[in-house]
Amino acid sequence: MLDPVLARIDADLPHAIQRLLALLRIPSISTDRVHAPDCEVAADWLVQDLIDMGFKAAKHPTSGRPMVVGQGGQGDRHLLFYGHYDVQPVDPLNLWDKPPFVPEVQDTPQGRVIRGRGASDDKGQLMTFVEACRAWIAVHHRLPARVTVFFEGEEESGSPSLVPFMEANKDLLTADLALICDTDLFDRDTPAITTMLRGLVGEEVVITGPRMDLHSGMYGGAAINPIRVLSRILSTLHDENGRVTVPGFYDGVEELTPELRAQWDALGFDESQFLGDVGLSVPAGERGRGVLESIWARPTCEINGISGGYAGDGFKTVLPSKATAKVSFRLVGQQDPLRIRESFRTMVRAMVPADCTVEFRDHGASRASVMSTANPAFEKARAALSDEWPRPAAFTGSGGSIPVAGHFKTILGMDSMLIGFAQEDDLIHSPNEKYDVRSFHKGIRSWARILAALS
Amino acid sequence: MLDPVLARIDADLPHAIQRLLALLRIPSISTDRVHAPDCEVAADWLVQDLIDMGFKAAKHPTSGRPMVVGQGGQGDRHLLFYGHYDVQPVDPLNLWDKPPFVPEVQDTPQGRVIRGRGASDDKGQLMTFVEACRAWIAVHHRLPARVTVFFEGEEESGSPSLVPFMEANKDLLTADLALICDTDLFDRDTPAITTMLRGLVGEEVVITGPRMDLHSGMYGGAAINPIRVLSRILSTLHDENGRVTVPGFYDGVEELTPELRAQWDALGFDESQFLGDVGLSVPAGERGRGVLESIWARPTCEINGISGGYAGDGFKTVLPSKATAKVSFRLVGQQDPLRIRESFRTMVRAMVPADCTVEFRDHGASRASVMSTANPAFEKARAALSDEWPRPAAFTGSGGSIPVAGHFKTILGMDSMLIGFAQEDDLIHSPNEKYDVRSFHKGIRSWARILAALS
Repeated sequence: MLDPVLARIDADLPHAIQRLLALLRIPSISTDRVHAPDCEVAADWLVQDLIDMGFKAAKHPTSGRPMVVGQGGQGDRHLLFYGHYDVQPVDPLNLWDKPPFVPEVQDTPQGRVIRGRGASDDKGQLMTFVEACRAWIAVHHRLPARVTVFFEGEEESGSPSLVPFMEANKDLLTADLALICDTDLFDRDTPAITTMLRGLVGEEVVITGPRMDLHSGMYGGAAINPIRVLSRILSTLHDENGRVTVPGFYDGVEELTPELRAQWDALGFDESQFLGDVGLSVPAGERGRGVLESIWARPTCEINGISGGYAGDGFKTVLPSKATAKVSFRLVGQQDPLRIRESFRTMVRAMVPADCTVEFRDHGASRASVMSTANPAFEKARAALSDEWPRPAAFTGSGGSIPVAGHFKTILGMDSMLIGFAQEDDLIHSPNEKYDVRSFHKGIRSWARILAALS
Repeated sequence: MLDPVLARIDADLPHAIQRLLALLRIPSISTDRVHAPDCEVAADWLVQDLIDMGFKAAKHPTSGRPMVVGQGGQGDRHLLFYGHYDVQPVDPLNLWDKPPFVPEVQDTPQGRVIRGRGASDDKGQLMTFVEACRAWIAVHHRLPARVTVFFEGEEESGSPSLVPFMEANKDLLTADLALICDTDLFDRDTPAITTMLRGLVGEEVVITGPRMDLHSGMYGGAAINPIRVLSRILSTLHDENGRVTVPGFYDGVEELTPELRAQWDALGFDESQFLGDVGLSVPAGERGRGVLESIWARPTCEINGISGGYAGDGFKTVLPSKATAKVSFRLVGQQDPLRIRESFRTMVRAMVPADCTVEFRDHGASRASVMSTANPAFEKARAALSDEWPRPAAFTGSGGSIPVAGHFKTILGMDSMLIGFAQEDDLIHSPNEKYDVRSFHKGIRSWARILAALS
């Protein structure tokens, strides 16, 4: 059953690439209202493509960007596949070698790549599954299982419509297992099933001191400076061992099991190279924890942005009225995002002096997801991946947050299996994003194998 | 001699205001290259106005904005008057009630004001002296002393050409005493001769961590975050008592003499109102020091700007490559700006972790100026001011930095007497800057009296 499908995938690759390029040309940036119509166009494109290959599919409006849901195949086994068609903003535009929405296939010393915004995150990834289904239907006129595909258009802007849509469409979306394609290979030759995903709390802190900007000569030494207050607050968020100081922060954090630690040790992860690739040499996380453990299995606090006063060229002796920071927490295990948010806010409020006020803005909260690999589907998928790639597949963690996996569990009662073919050098969220043609090709073949294995 | 001059000033006030409005219409922002031609226009306007009233005057090119020097009167007594014709940038433009360079006279509950960028700082102030000279010449066909006027066009952008120009034009500029009009009244009814001016060191600190912006999910907990490093550095610049921690910072700082402290206590300065006017209630300087002492006679460290990562709307989980702060120090007494700069840099370098680099940018350095009030001109001017205003004139300090006073001393060997008629609510450097018509009118009359007193 499988071999002719794989052969069909190989033969059809040029056309599959053309279809992906067409989708990449649509600038479906979800965070920017100007691109809302482009998100509609991308959703329509996907609906039409699903219908063309024999799915029943429709665009579902939300108060934000639309959802796409398609249904194909039959049988007792019901799989839900999730991806997102929206992409990150493209600034700074001047750092792109080519226009971000004029994608192309390029030959590079590392092989052929598909270059453009969304090539990897997540249009290229979601199309691996679509193309696998297309090949199955083309060869066998049917799918090996009942399949629902579910494409979101707000993943890069906090998914405001996701939970309401899931809650209102439980019957449509509930399946036996969710497949999510938005993660990385472990390395070029080693596929990964991500079984641990960090959660995320996003917070914005605005400190206000004087009610207007002041001249620092006239008021310096008399008026409180909100940048000074903010710096002091931010400087207390980590202790000297790199641990986060928010009270109760580590409640619910679990140590790695010896088994998982041994599995990860066996991966041969190269800390020096991982850091060296971005110009660094010293792990910046908790003292005594390795890089892999720090990004896969430990919680963090990062300052993602800070602003206040004069930041242009030259100098301006202003004592500003306001200073702002964006702070995020990555969560693991059973950490409770809402309790952490409250604890953080309480801690910050206690550090705000009499003459300042603090205002918080909520930029989302999601729990970590830890998958139960006891579900036999995990071992079946691992074997299928191991057949396709040079090295056996690994169960891994991921530093990023994919809140949808948590929502599938809590709202729809479904486990999720996260399998993706992106690589660390794909420059997702950055200029010159790319997806290896090899990732795309072997990704399609991988899903064809997994569909067979899980049916 | 004096009474007809004062009468002439009163009668000519409407025309004097019209002349000031003409000067205010020229958008001579020095820090912005786009406005370089406007600075030329402002300089030309002043040269022509000086020539019209009987001075010999010329525009002197520099590598930046031009200087204006005019010479009038004769006699043994030679006074140099300094002001600046350049103005601050106008952003944020949306907070101006009227366009900043379409000045007008407005009636307000506090009296008539001249509204527009530069109305107070420093075009309105410098024209008080010009108008006083004009009245003297109109009435007596001569000035009571030899007068050189010297107008700079780079005061708001660090005065890069000032020292070279002074050094190259010592003969042109050296007089018995410098008069500088760029300071405030003590309060609405109390004129001030500023005898202590704080110095200024401007520094920019750029911390670089990873060589590109990273995804905080993929790298958070592994890669050093330069905002975190910068916050920690900035949070150590003050101790728990509000003292600056830069080693050696307080070398050369002198305590107030009992006499000066008694004089300042007698001024009846209202701390609560000063802070309340900007929405504050607690002095933010060194513990145990009053507001007046803190801003006139104590050194400070302020963070004037900070930036790094994503500061736009919404949230972006970036772990940035760079973070930047602009830091300034106000200096008093004999503090050495160059030693403080070096000590600050040494202190910062010691806090930069292995994987980060720090880069500093020099935004100027000037010593504090402390005038010797033993010069009899100070008491003569004080008496002249006391005749004009409801309350006797005071010797005061100033929190701001007017480096030119220091340069007059070190380069030209001249003492400076700082007399100005601005008020705290003039909104200098801010939207809706204004100058009271009363300040302008009584300012002109004050200079007419001082010219008589010093001749």
